[in-house]
Amino acid sequence: MLIVHKYGGTSVGSLERIASVADRVERAKKEGNDIVVVVSAMSGETNKLTEYAQHFSNTPAKREMDMLLSSGERVTAALLAIALQEKGVDAVAMTGRQAGIVTDNSHTYARIESIDPSHMESEIAEGKVVIVAGFQGINSAGSVTTLGRGGSDLSAVAIAGALKADACEIYSDVDGIYTTDPRIEPKAKKMDFISYDEMLELASLGAKVLQNRSVELAKKLKVKMVAKSSFSDAEGTVIGEEESMEAVLVSGIALDRNQARVTVREVADRPGIAAEIFTKLADEQINVDMIIQNASTDGTTNLGFTVPQSQLNQAQAVIEAFDHDIGGMDLDDSVCKVSVVGVGMKSHAGVAAAAFSALAAENINIEMISTSEIKVSMIVAEKYAELAVRTLHSVYNLDK
Amino acid sequence: MLIVHKYGGTSVGSLERIASVADRVERAKKEGNDIVVVVSAMSGETNKLTEYAQHFSNTPAKREMDMLLSSGERVTAALLAIALQEKGVDAVAMTGRQAGIVTDNSHTYARIESIDPSHMESEIAEGKVVIVAGFQGINSAGSVTTLGRGGSDLSAVAIAGALKADACEIYSDVDGIYTTDPRIEPKAKKMDFISYDEMLELASLGAKVLQNRSVELAKKLKVKMVAKSSFSDAEGTVIGEEESMEAVLVSGIALDRNQARVTVREVADRPGIAAEIFTKLADEQINVDMIIQNASTDGTTNLGFTVPQSQLNQAQAVIEAFDHDIGGMDLDDSVCKVSVVGVGMKSHAGVAAAAFSALAAENINIEMISTSEIKVSMIVAEKYAELAVRTLHSVYNLDK
Repeated sequence: MLIVHKYGGTSVGSLERIASVADRVERAKKEGNDIVVVVSAMSGETNKLTEYAQHFSNTPAKREMDMLLSSGERVTAALLAIALQEKGVDAVAMTGRQAGIVTDNSHTYARIESIDPSHMESEIAEGKVVIVAGFQGINSAGSVTTLGRGGSDLSAVAIAGALKADACEIYSDVDGIYTTDPRIEPKAKKMDFISYDEMLELASLGAKVLQNRSVELAKKLKVKMVAKSSFSDAEGTVIGEEESMEAVLVSGIALDRNQARVTVREVADRPGIAAEIFTKLADEQINVDMIIQNASTDGTTNLGFTVPQSQLNQAQAVIEAFDHDIGGMDLDDSVCKVSVVGVGMKSHAGVAAAAFSALAAENINIEMISTSEIKVSMIVAEKYAELAVRTLHSVYNLDK
Repeated sequence: MLIVHKYGGTSVGSLERIASVADRVERAKKEGNDIVVVVSAMSGETNKLTEYAQHFSNTPAKREMDMLLSSGERVTAALLAIALQEKGVDAVAMTGRQAGIVTDNSHTYARIESIDPSHMESEIAEGKVVIVAGFQGINSAGSVTTLGRGGSDLSAVAIAGALKADACEIYSDVDGIYTTDPRIEPKAKKMDFISYDEMLELASLGAKVLQNRSVELAKKLKVKMVAKSSFSDAEGTVIGEEESMEAVLVSGIALDRNQARVTVREVADRPGIAAEIFTKLADEQINVDMIIQNASTDGTTNLGFTVPQSQLNQAQAVIEAFDHDIGGMDLDDSVCKVSVVGVGMKSHAGVAAAAFSALAAENINIEMISTSEIKVSMIVAEKYAELAVRTLHSVYNLDK
């Protein structure tokens, strides 16, 4: 079997952790597998370098940020290769460029355009463990690019796809995907399997185990992902194609505390106003999540949306600069988003209704609602976060 | 004018120091010059990464060490570019690869084979300050290589040569080349000018301002070097071609404390024994400096040589493993090397004799002597180091 391992920042957060990763890779190799390892920067490194840059500029050039930030993964890759070689495991470290990863020109959030796996393949054919610095590639001009936060997951899946690997194991400090956050609901259960689509919803809803773009790419390339812990030998959770005819109704409850709500009051109810507002928000790279607009009654309407808490000030500035056709704005950063996710919802009515009833029974007011084929998301006051999660976890019998 | 600046580790040792370098580069640019800047890693970074690697292995693979160590210069280059951009100075950071530096395959002490300056030239033509990560290039296989300790000086001179720059200014924490170490002899004087050849001797003899290979390359490429301080605005020392007809007799006194002496006793006096010994030392990459062998009287001779103190144990192991034709060995790591350097020696007898007499008058025993056309080096007991330097500095009137 050819298996891609990916180790995140906490998994390689110290020299001792890197040694432990080397042990794990050695075992996997000795079991007869070909192994490619993708590594993140040691935890804290990327933040440190970002702070260095911000010492000089609040808006550092993205091209230079990429050269700066890509250095952390290279350090980890080189150290892991050295650790493996010392154990007698033949290993070779590669930068993103050396691994053949070519991206577009969007510095700091580049998209992978192609991977030429021939260099990796020839080293694998020689029996070597290939260690790749995650999070990075080069563009057609030869400049170093990075793939955005969590980009090493993306590197790993893309490499697994290019090499037609049998699995892509994503190692972190949690041992799989749970029906909800076990720190909130101790009855939460680890899933053996979750479909790509459910995982996408969970990831976009605040579950931090896997980066969303990597799950999207895994789905597209049909890469089998496995979420595992680098701190234990527990079986992880497989993320793959839904195969059972009768899908589980609801697979998990997600909580995202990093939400702030903006309500723009008395928006003139004519075409183009909403488009203008969201274009301006997009121009500032503000990440708008839920958007709610009610039908108009008196010629104006209220327009609600959520943004990450860190971008609330930015969003406020955009709306304040909006000089026509709106009446005012309310802000609330004491909200959270609770979501129910499951492919079974597609074919079952009543999932949303059950959620609304259960929360109402606990006197939890739902401020905003947004639904898709496989999820129902609700904005509630932050103080109800844990209670809402436990209530919903119980309603769908996820602890059974 | 096109000027290459090179800033060493202490000159970019903190964010404040990098800001100060940005000020200096801005000034040079505003004076109407085109500027290319070559930077080292922030001081301490390379040692930190080396310690990381040594946590895993005493003999880390050189290819991976290069990937590891090359990251520090990239960080500095990106940060300096960001600092300049924030000041409104258009700047672009480049890795060694992006600057077109191609080396041979000797990882950790690669030699530059060629520089394709076209990328740098096109950015300079657009009015940009080009910032290059020093110390590194890539080999023909695309792997990152490094040029050895002090390699950023070499990068700077090679780039200055490729760009036909008007000068290559090497910034450090000292403001030029002195007749001897001012910490030992307060009367030491800063030189306005020193020839390549004299500088080569001084550098190889322990003066740490400039890396020796870079001076050799500057001589070959006829690059005018200037040793300056990044902590002051003092004029530096120009290193160039000797132009005066009557060269100064002696230009400086150098001290190298990092010496250990090995004496191999009762070496059989027949062809090939010395060659065998030094071949074995070379195989272990031991850096043998002075070699002294006296004429034989009784069929055996004593063979003396010096090595860096850090390699004395290695050298001892090589000699101990030598199982024939030698009688034994003496070791002494309490020695130092004092050298008198000057192109004027070529045409003046008596320079060496004056040194021997002056040291004898101070009762300093000379343990080994080695001479070249423009230098006389003497091994003396470490305890006499400062006295020997001051004595020689005075004998040749260097304080006048």
